[in-house]
Amino acid sequence: MPKSRRTASAKPLRSVSWEGGLDDGRLAILDLEAMPSSCACRSLGDLDEVVQAIDGRSVAGSAAPIAAAFGVVLHLAAKAGDAAPATTLAKELARALKALAGTGACCLKPVLDRIAACYQRHARLLTAKEMCARLLMEAKRIHREDSERCARIARNGAKLLPAGGVLTHGHTGALSSGGMGTALGCIVQAHRNGKRLAVYATESRPLLDGARLTTAELMAAGVPVTLCCDGTAASLMAGKRIRAVVIGAKTIFANGDVCAAPGGYALAVLAHHHGIPFHVAAPSTAFAPKLKNGGRCTICERDADEVRQPRGNLASPAAVPVANPCCDTIPAHLLTTIVTDKGVIHTPMAETVAVLAG
Amino acid sequence: MPKSRRTASAKPLRSVSWEGGLDDGRLAILDLEAMPSSCACRSLGDLDEVVQAIDGRSVAGSAAPIAAAFGVVLHLAAKAGDAAPATTLAKELARALKALAGTGACCLKPVLDRIAACYQRHARLLTAKEMCARLLMEAKRIHREDSERCARIARNGAKLLPAGGVLTHGHTGALSSGGMGTALGCIVQAHRNGKRLAVYATESRPLLDGARLTTAELMAAGVPVTLCCDGTAASLMAGKRIRAVVIGAKTIFANGDVCAAPGGYALAVLAHHHGIPFHVAAPSTAFAPKLKNGGRCTICERDADEVRQPRGNLASPAAVPVANPCCDTIPAHLLTTIVTDKGVIHTPMAETVAVLAG
Repeated sequence: MPKSRRTASAKPLRSVSWEGGLDDGRLAILDLEAMPSSCACRSLGDLDEVVQAIDGRSVAGSAAPIAAAFGVVLHLAAKAGDAAPATTLAKELARALKALAGTGACCLKPVLDRIAACYQRHARLLTAKEMCARLLMEAKRIHREDSERCARIARNGAKLLPAGGVLTHGHTGALSSGGMGTALGCIVQAHRNGKRLAVYATESRPLLDGARLTTAELMAAGVPVTLCCDGTAASLMAGKRIRAVVIGAKTIFANGDVCAAPGGYALAVLAHHHGIPFHVAAPSTAFAPKLKNGGRCTICERDADEVRQPRGNLASPAAVPVANPCCDTIPAHLLTTIVTDKGVIHTPMAETVAVLAG
Repeated sequence: MPKSRRTASAKPLRSVSWEGGLDDGRLAILDLEAMPSSCACRSLGDLDEVVQAIDGRSVAGSAAPIAAAFGVVLHLAAKAGDAAPATTLAKELARALKALAGTGACCLKPVLDRIAACYQRHARLLTAKEMCARLLMEAKRIHREDSERCARIARNGAKLLPAGGVLTHGHTGALSSGGMGTALGCIVQAHRNGKRLAVYATESRPLLDGARLTTAELMAAGVPVTLCCDGTAASLMAGKRIRAVVIGAKTIFANGDVCAAPGGYALAVLAHHHGIPFHVAAPSTAFAPKLKNGGRCTICERDADEVRQPRGNLASPAAVPVANPCCDTIPAHLLTTIVTDKGVIHTPMAETVAVLAG
């Protein structure tokens, strides 16, 4: 199978897409790590390439588990004997799931579990080839479902955004999802609905994904955007240039607390102080109804060099200790709404979370 | 006169120092722009080199006007005929003041006015050489006064800082002043007084002067320091890791509002929300008693590429519009104290500001 190829992208930007059939299939991804210097597609041909792409953040957000599902298919399709029973794939499946679970991405587990369950359901009924076809179908369904959730979030959220200044944080758009994204999807949908927005995108340290990706995606969509440092959001709010904030979330707890990108909590407090509506947009897959509140969230420290060396360029003494939490917890009382594909949650949140998460 | 030389620094770091006498004098500066990759002194031999150093931020903060004063002396000493009257220097003085006023530094005017006034006072009494000696004395006095103000601020502020987590923002230390700095001076003095501090330094976008300079200065002083992104300060506060915040200010308005580094306002709101004392440390030269409040502050936009290209490395689409205000206004009601060399101002502030600024 040929190794990863780079091709200039002519078609509209898609984070991940399966190209070809089962035997000649490849996974095309837009390489996020190369942005903003280049906007290039990469075609991945085997599991190792998919693992590397996820580990290196070339594919991120909800696009990462989608890529993982396709990665399993790429791996098994290359191993499946024509007449062999599906159970001959068990070892290779376990190897693929283990390799993917070992990447830095924290959001792969539900999809890997789903792929494993799909295999279990059909293992005694299908041949190896048929199993690969079934898993490809499952991966495409996972992709389609993510895209549909994004579209519903965008429709629900677009209505809540006012015309004028809207602030967003991190990257929550099409480039890191299987569809149009979450918070950024709401913004793009509001723009398509004819609302005249003036979007402010924070650069979103430490990964600078606001600077690198959110701005590029909004410019490509024709939405007016202004980039600012994370610390500048407050003075923009004080200057009445922000009428609403919308960001994404990784987890929605039972009481309506959310777990969001680092820096999200600061913006929630600042919006609260200035009386500015603060919306969180997240898929229903982010519900964690068994976790009572955000205090139950494990916050790991990420690589210190992300802070010491913005994009690899040393900006501080190499040995300085660093605080670099992987996420922020935002308490429910600071949120105006949580926008999901299943509906919009207003304050008080716990009751609606229970219904929608059920 | 020989051109700028670079020498490895062995002595304790000083932002600016005059070396030699009047005829062979040179201005040694620590090149801030080269940090953190190198910590090197540069020896400046003429006005052009001083102008370039100020323009390129190799010398900054209150060290910049000190360098400017010495720059005038370097320029005039090279032109002064032995027996000529001081008035023969008028044209060259005007040229020097104009070149320095044309740099990007916004804080030079009071010192340039003081040098001009000193010249005026003595122009008809002295020879050109004597005038140069007199101006060198004035420049040294300007330097010494800044250093003494810093020491008094540090003594006043150190008492207010608790043991434990103290957050600071921007760079307000010895590396960018004529003495031990302002906010950072308070921290270093508290450490010398035996307080066990755990300092958190924000990286302080857009210039990253917290990451580059504050961390380096604290490490050199033996003060425990942890670097964090600007947006992380809020979650550190929520996690009870911050017991006080201390930052610098460029201007203190009549009502106690202050003008501070970009991002300072966000931290003031966040500290207020978390019930954490928020101190501002600034020299009495920052008083602007004729300006009623922070609304009178002109906030210019700085170079957009500071945001688009952190330290010269492109991190966003090259054409994206940027909001990059030069400073933040912080209203007096968010401040716990303003620490100055003349005393500490507590809430309500207007009355004490009037007394100390008088």
